[in-house]
Amino acid sequence: MSKQVITLNCDMGESYGQWVMGNDSQVMPLIDMANVACGFHASDPKTMANTIKLAIQYDVKIGAHPSYPDRLGFGRRTIAMDSDELTYSLIYQVGALKAMCASFNTELHYIKPHGALYNDMLQDHSIFESVVDAAACFSIPLMMLAHPDNQPFLDIADRYEVPLLFEAFADRAYMSNGMLASRSQNGAVLTDSEAVINQVEQILQYGKLMTLDGEVIEIEADTICVHGDNPQALKILEDLRAIF
Amino acid sequence: MSKQVITLNCDMGESYGQWVMGNDSQVMPLIDMANVACGFHASDPKTMANTIKLAIQYDVKIGAHPSYPDRLGFGRRTIAMDSDELTYSLIYQVGALKAMCASFNTELHYIKPHGALYNDMLQDHSIFESVVDAAACFSIPLMMLAHPDNQPFLDIADRYEVPLLFEAFADRAYMSNGMLASRSQNGAVLTDSEAVINQVEQILQYGKLMTLDGEVIEIEADTICVHGDNPQALKILEDLRAIF
Amino acid sequence: MSKQVITLNCDMGESYGQWVMGNDSQVMPLIDMANVACGFHASDPKTMANTIKLAIQYDVKIGAHPSYPDRLGFGRRTIAMDSDELTYSLIYQVGALKAMCASFNTELHYIKPHGALYNDMLQDHSIFESVVDAAACFSIPLMMLAHPDNQPFLDIADRYEVPLLFEAFADRAYMSNGMLASRSQNGAVLTDSEAVINQVEQILQYGKLMTLDGEVIEIEADTICVHGDNPQALKILEDLRAIF
Amino acid sequence: MSKQVITLNCDMGESYGQWVMGNDSQVMPLIDMANVACGFHASDPKTMANTIKLAIQYDVKIGAHPSYPDRLGFGRRTIAMDSDELTYSLIYQVGALKAMCASFNTELHYIKPHGALYNDMLQDHSIFESVVDAAACFSIPLMMLAHPDNQPFLDIADRYEVPLLFEAFADRAYMSNGMLASRSQNGAVLTDSEAVINQVEQILQYGKLMTLDGEVIEIEADTICVHGDNPQALKILEDLRAIF
Repeated sequence: MSKQVITLNCDMGESYGQWVMGNDSQVMPLIDMANVACGFHASDPKTMANTIKLAIQYDVKIGAHPSYPDRLGFGRRTIAMDSDELTYSLIYQVGALKAMCASFNTELHYIKPHGALYNDMLQDHSIFESVVDAAACFSIPLMMLAHPDNQPFLDIADRYEVPLLFEAFADRAYMSNGMLASRSQNGAVLTDSEAVINQVEQILQYGKLMTLDGEVIEIEADTICVHGDNPQALKILEDLRAIF
Repeated sequence: MSKQVITLNCDMGESYGQWVMGNDSQVMPLIDMANVACGFHASDPKTMANTIKLAIQYDVKIGAHPSYPDRLGFGRRTIAMDSDELTYSLIYQVGALKAMCASFNTELHYIKPHGALYNDMLQDHSIFESVVDAAACFSIPLMMLAHPDNQPFLDIADRYEVPLLFEAFADRAYMSNGMLASRSQNGAVLTDSEAVINQVEQILQYGKLMTLDGEVIEIEADTICVHGDNPQALKILEDLRAIF
Repeated sequence: MSKQVITLNCDMGESYGQWVMGNDSQVMPLIDMANVACGFHASDPKTMANTIKLAIQYDVKIGAHPSYPDRLGFGRRTIAMDSDELTYSLIYQVGALKAMCASFNTELHYIKPHGALYNDMLQDHSIFESVVDAAACFSIPLMMLAHPDNQPFLDIADRYEVPLLFEAFADRAYMSNGMLASRSQNGAVLTDSEAVINQVEQILQYGKLMTLDGEVIEIEADTICVHGDNPQALKILEDLRAIF
Repeated sequence: MSKQVITLNCDMGESYGQWVMGNDSQVMPLIDMANVACGFHASDPKTMANTIKLAIQYDVKIGAHPSYPDRLGFGRRTIAMDSDELTYSLIYQVGALKAMCASFNTELHYIKPHGALYNDMLQDHSIFESVVDAAACFSIPLMMLAHPDNQPFLDIADRYEVPLLFEAFADRAYMSNGMLASRSQNGAVLTDSEAVINQVEQILQYGKLMTLDGEVIEIEADTICVHGDNPQALKILEDLRAIF
């Protein structure tokens, strides 16, 4: 297999106050883009600063990872917000992180919504538009799930002149509609390193992957996400780095 | 009395979620500078957006009014934070407001800390330096209490190249050391419009005012603050606007 | 019209920290049962204590008014929680209020869920069961909307040996399925005192009321709720007290 | 050395939402009394319920571990509160935990304040009195640091008829005034198992211990605390259990 370029992104900076989450100091050297929590589902100003410093140290691009306002639920629960309120909430979070980046003389590169908001924007075009509206304020790209059919999202983003970055998941199984299989399904999370490497190879080499029910779908991805909350995350990242 | 120029500043945007505080729509037309809460002691992204829109409508300069993280105590309680943590906390808040200003195509003009943090930075130079450090990241002035002796503060601010804006209080009595009399003291809050006008006139015309115990101290102020939580605030503002 | 007994309940203690909501000191003397917020959508320990003291002063029965954990949204947004988590969350809130009542030598009389949780438990029997489960821990009644068909709710509550208290709304229009008309509909909130009195009279005298679309439905209510957030609340309460 | 009875207490239930802290499932079988966080500095209703279930499983007595309202600072920062407000805040927390205990048919046995509140009540008798006032509402003992001179505390507690439980620390060095040496001092935390066992033995056998500066002070302790945040906590607990 010829060596291919892979761009790995991972959720970072998810500690909060005295509570530590994740393994940032070991993961950061292995990734290219860090999705940094902005204080609404995880993180706090000091954690954000430490995460930014770590990203700079390993030359990792920083993206904002904003969320619904739900610390107790870690941003994994849908919170009903009207369009404006959601956009303002995102501008608040992303603006806070951007200013912290600036204070360390570095830049904010993209926005990738977290958790329930990430899922909701893929299902509901009005939520997607609120997110795009926020991204437009910062003139930076929005990262989202690579679909077999990205066109409707591209159309909305174009109106706001927001570039889209498409990601595929290394360690998650897909359904035939191009969405991720729900975590409650058997096999939804790939923990076997070989399966992960195989899925990534299919995406990088052929722009395709095999879904949980055996269909082949097309996925064109700019970047590959490895979930930090996968207990195998570190091993998976090391294996991917060794190959790609 | 010859007409003099007065620059009035007032705390704005202190509502939170469903809770309304203050009388922003009536106060905003009467002031020149709005100290806008940033979500840590009051406000939320939607309230911030509405406050920015109102300030733009009346051509009022927007300043950030960050606080210790203490919503329940409305930022009126000291929260011990190490220097870096405080600076990061301020960058977070100010950055959030600045981004929201930018999304409405307006600018953030200054920083004025709120409540206990405002008082603490006047008493403790290391806290003042943490605040100045945050202001330096935004290249905007810091607003603080005009003292008889501002020099120590100017020295610190100069090292960070942060301009200082000095304010005097229209509706608060002073002690002879130049600090505000504590609210628990009799006469600490001026509620009589004539007394307020007289104090402001002394400051504007002579750079002096009479303290609660009858001394005269020198106060050079760039701007005059009227407290929104003074029940007479609206009347006082109207009276000041009529005269100055 | 012969004088009838009316038992009025109203949401109380919805202030938070420095933010005042409602008009508790004027409303409390006019009601029989106070639904006291428990700190998750509104209130804080000090506000709860003050509300309990006020209720005792006017011999008003205290009920717990727990909510989804959502202060920013004032408990008006659905928060997805699994059954156990919801029950624990309610036991926490109700237990806190009960202990505060005990510290003032008074008792907690009932539970009435707030906002989105109130609506959700009427629509989803598993949510209703989580609420009943919490009420069973305190051996006190659960207050809920009087329906044309209360039987399914009575069946669940019976299994937990939880008595139900049924309430009707004085100032809200009904739909023909017995649910309240959504606030977004025209005429959903009755602000005209005469209309309110008429609706209450129909309920008390005939166990019936006329829905927004002109149907007559049967409603057997143990207590009548007046919403504190109705700007006319005080006037309505006074009018109802004068008549019933 | 003759076998002596030791009663070990440890802070438990300090996780929050998705964030895990401590090693409760391994520590619980080794202790006699669990100081359970009540949601203001750590924990949430679900975590509290899980902690109660674990304590019941290992027949461990449950105590309330309330705190200043400061999740971000983990209750380690002093929050200025007036006397009543502090008492109400404690009644709220303890009441919530007590109700959760009751829902699992178990009892709440004592109160031990957490973090900054624990330290503050030892230094400031008015704060101690606010805590005792809250404990009195539940008719359960208050746990506090065993001092060379406990009398002033006993006097206050007697007035409220609140029994005191005195604890000594297995893994913390003392100063000659009977207070714990600050964590910032060298040697303040005993991590060597032998040193811990020796200190505990001195306390249990002779009611004495040697301070950091070599003095011997008298300490009469009802229970011995091992800090969960000591990385050696598990090893220390196992060693203590093996010997005493």
